[in-house]
Amino acid sequence: MSTKVTPISGFQEWLPRERIAEQHVLDTIREVFELHGFASISTRSVEPVDRLSSQGEDADKEIYAVRRLAAPADDKEPTLGLHFDMTVPFARYVLENAGKLTFPFRRYQIQQAWRGERPQRGRYREFIQADVDIIDANELPGHYEAELLLVIADVFSRLPVGDYTIHVNNRKICQGFYTGIGIDDVIGTLRIVDKLDKIGEDGVAKMLLAAGRTQEQVDQCLALARIRTTDSSFVEQVRALGVENDVLDEGLTHLKSVIDTAHEHAPGVAVADLRIARGLDYYTGTVYETMLERDPGYGSVCSGGRYDALASDGKRTFPGVGISIGVSRLLGLLIGEEGLTASRETPTAVLVAVNDEESRAGSVRIATALRQRGIRTLVSPKAAKFGKQIQFADRRGIPCVWFPGAGADGQDQVKDIRSGEQVDADLTSWAPPQGDLVPSLVVPDRVDD
Amino acid sequence: MSTKVTPISGFQEWLPRERIAEQHVLDTIREVFELHGFASISTRSVEPVDRLSSQGEDADKEIYAVRRLAAPADDKEPTLGLHFDMTVPFARYVLENAGKLTFPFRRYQIQQAWRGERPQRGRYREFIQADVDIIDANELPGHYEAELLLVIADVFSRLPVGDYTIHVNNRKICQGFYTGIGIDDVIGTLRIVDKLDKIGEDGVAKMLLAAGRTQEQVDQCLALARIRTTDSSFVEQVRALGVENDVLDEGLTHLKSVIDTAHEHAPGVAVADLRIARGLDYYTGTVYETMLERDPGYGSVCSGGRYDALASDGKRTFPGVGISIGVSRLLGLLIGEEGLTASRETPTAVLVAVNDEESRAGSVRIATALRQRGIRTLVSPKAAKFGKQIQFADRRGIPCVWFPGAGADGQDQVKDIRSGEQVDADLTSWAPPQGDLVPSLVVPDRVDD
Repeated sequence: MSTKVTPISGFQEWLPRERIAEQHVLDTIREVFELHGFASISTRSVEPVDRLSSQGEDADKEIYAVRRLAAPADDKEPTLGLHFDMTVPFARYVLENAGKLTFPFRRYQIQQAWRGERPQRGRYREFIQADVDIIDANELPGHYEAELLLVIADVFSRLPVGDYTIHVNNRKICQGFYTGIGIDDVIGTLRIVDKLDKIGEDGVAKMLLAAGRTQEQVDQCLALARIRTTDSSFVEQVRALGVENDVLDEGLTHLKSVIDTAHEHAPGVAVADLRIARGLDYYTGTVYETMLERDPGYGSVCSGGRYDALASDGKRTFPGVGISIGVSRLLGLLIGEEGLTASRETPTAVLVAVNDEESRAGSVRIATALRQRGIRTLVSPKAAKFGKQIQFADRRGIPCVWFPGAGADGQDQVKDIRSGEQVDADLTSWAPPQGDLVPSLVVPDRVDD
Repeated sequence: MSTKVTPISGFQEWLPRERIAEQHVLDTIREVFELHGFASISTRSVEPVDRLSSQGEDADKEIYAVRRLAAPADDKEPTLGLHFDMTVPFARYVLENAGKLTFPFRRYQIQQAWRGERPQRGRYREFIQADVDIIDANELPGHYEAELLLVIADVFSRLPVGDYTIHVNNRKICQGFYTGIGIDDVIGTLRIVDKLDKIGEDGVAKMLLAAGRTQEQVDQCLALARIRTTDSSFVEQVRALGVENDVLDEGLTHLKSVIDTAHEHAPGVAVADLRIARGLDYYTGTVYETMLERDPGYGSVCSGGRYDALASDGKRTFPGVGISIGVSRLLGLLIGEEGLTASRETPTAVLVAVNDEESRAGSVRIATALRQRGIRTLVSPKAAKFGKQIQFADRRGIPCVWFPGAGADGQDQVKDIRSGEQVDADLTSWAPPQGDLVPSLVVPDRVDD
C-alpha cells in the first residue's frame, strides 16, 4: 500500500484518547435522550438529490452527490446525495412508515451528515448531529416546546461544557410584530435580522433599508431584536414598542410559558432573546439557540424549533418540535481547541502479567474470569521481565497489573502501578479502584473557569 | 415537502422496535471489544478514490464516488470515495498517526461502509461492520491469532445467534501444500478454491483444470479442502496426503496452536476447516470464517485473518490480525428474516399521568426525580381520562403508569398495566420491576431451535 497519506480538510478524526472523550459525550447524549423517552432511529446516509435540493435556500450548493464509479453513462438509478442534516431523512422516514409508527412519535437520531461548504472553525464537511424531535399527526400541544428545552438543559448539565444559556424566541412574535409595523416580507426580514451576530446592527440596518424597509421599520426591528431578558419581563418591553395584534399576543404568551416552565424546572438556563431568528423557513413557533458563555462568538451549538409541517402525506400533516446538537461543532471546541481528553488511551483497567509463555493459558483464564465480571482486561503480549510488563501498562495508562501466583503462598497479587502498592487479590471479588473501571473524562481547567 | 417517498434497494432501515434490537447487538459488540482491551477509533467516511481503488481485485467496481454538486468542472480537489471496508481507512489512519499511537495497537471500529454492488440476500449497499485488529510494528506474536478467535467467541456467545462455528485455516498450509505439489500460482488457486461454497467441487475442478492444473493436482487440492476436524487430527490427515515442506509444517503448527487454544478457552466453537481460503490477497497466516449452524448457506457473518503488512511507512511495516463482524448481514437474517425484536418500541419504563393541565408541573417534577435515578420516564401528553392515559402507555409497551396523589392519603401510586396491580410508590425508592428498566430482546423461537 502506498505510504502517501492525505488529511482531508473538513473531515475530523481523533486519536484514541480523544475518541474516548467523544464516546463519553455521545453516550451521555444518548442516555439523556432515552431517559426522556425518545426512541432511536437510524436512517440511510443517502436520499435522492431532488429531495435534498428541494429543502431550503442554496441547500444544493452544499450537497455531496454519490455515484457508483462503475455506473454506465446512461445509468437509470436516481442520483443520490449524502444527507446534510437529520431533518430531511426523518421527514421521509415518517412518511414512509407513518402507518407503522405510534404518534406522538418521539425519536432521537445521532448520525453523521455531510456538507460540501468551505471548512472553517466549528464547521466541518463531515459532522455528527444529535437530534431529538417530537412529532404528532395534525396537532401538537404547546407544552412540548417547553419540554424540549428541558431535555437539552438535562444534556448540557451532564456535559463538560461550562456555563451555557439557551436563547429562546417565538417566530410568531417576529411575524406579528413585523406585520404590525407594515412589513409583509416576514421571512426575508427574519433572514436579514438573523445576520446580527455576523454583521452587527449597522450591517443589518443597511440590508433592511436596501430591501425596501423604512428607517422607522428598521428602528423598530432593531429595538425588538435588542430585547433579552432572563425572566418574562420581555413581554412588557415588547408592549412598550406600541405594536399590538393577535399573532404577536400568541407569540408572547407561548414564549412566556416556555420561559416560565424553564425557570421552574431548570433555573438559570433559559433567556428570552428576541433576536434569535434561525435562517430556516419552516419554523413557525418557538426557536432555540444554545451559546457557551465563555465563547458566544463560536455560535450556537444546539438549535432548533417548532414547525407546523415536517411532512404531509396528503391526508395528514405532521407538526413537531425538534432540537439538534452540533456534536462535532461542540467537540471541535472542547476536544480540538481546549484539550478535553480521557484519563487513558485504552478501556483496559487491568493487565494480567505472563510469568512465562508456558503459563500464558493460566493468564488467559484469569483475564476471562475478570471480563465475566465486567472488568476490562488485557493479557500481557510477552512474558518479559515484570518491569517491562509494568512499563507496558504504564505507557497506556492501565492502572493495575495482575501477577499470577506472586504472593508468598502462591496466591495472585495486584499492583496499583501509580502508588506501587501490591496486595493479594481474589479473582471472584477483586475490583479496580473506584473510578478506574472505565476511563474518565479529563476536563482542562479553563472549561470550568 | 413532496409526498413521494422512495425506498432505495440495498439501503436497510429499521422500525423503532427493530432499531432497539440493533442497538442491543451493537452495544454488546462494543462492550465485549472493550472488555478485551480494544480502543475505539472512528475514521472519516471518505478516502481518495485512488487509495480505495488500489485495494484488491475489482474493488473499483464497487466504489461510490462522492463529489460536491456545486463543484466547478475544473475542481482541483481529489476525487473522494466512500470507504468499502474498515481496513483501508485503518491502514491510512495508522500511517497518518503512527508517531502518536502505542504499539501493539488494539483498535475496534464500528462504522458504516458502502459498496455499489448488486443488492441481494445478506448483501447491502450501505452496511455496518464491526472490526477488531491488533497490529504491531515490524513483528506480531502468533498468540494474537488464537486470541482474536476468543474475542469473537465471546461476542457471539452473548448474541442471540443460536449455534455457530468459527472455521479456521492457515494460508501457509495452502501455500506449502500447493507449492509442494507443483502449483506456483498460489493466490490464483486459492481464489478458485474459495468458490467451493458457490459452485461445488465439480465447478472448482473444472476451473482449476481450465487454469492449467493437472488432474492429480486438482484431486490433491480437493482432498486438502475436504479436511475438516473439530480437534487437531487434521494434522495427521494432511500428512496422509504425502506432501511435506517447511511452510506447510509451519502452517500446521500454527493452526494446531489456534485450535488447541480455542478448545481450552472456548470449547466446541472452533473447527479446523482446510477449505477456508478468503478471497483477499493480503492474508498470510490464520484465516477465519464464522457460520450460523442453522443456515450455513447464508455465508460467513464474521471473517478475517492475519496479514504481514497492513501498511508500511518505508521504515516500519505493520503486521496484524483482524476480524470483521458483518453486523448488517447478521441483522438482515436475525431481524429482517427471523423477526428478532425488542420488548417495546420505546426506552420508556414509566409514564407519569397528568391529573389536569394545571398540575402538569407536578408531573414533570416527578419525571425529573425518576430520571435522576436512571429511570426512563415520560410525562403524559394530555390530561385525558386515566383510561386514555393507560391506553397511551399500553400502545407503546410502557409497562408502568405513575399516578400522582392517587392513594387514599394522597400518596402517589404506580400501576403495572400488565397485571393491573396498583400500589403506593415512593419517589426516592420505587423502581420498575426487574427487566423492565430498559427494553429487552425478544428472540423468535426458531433461533434457539
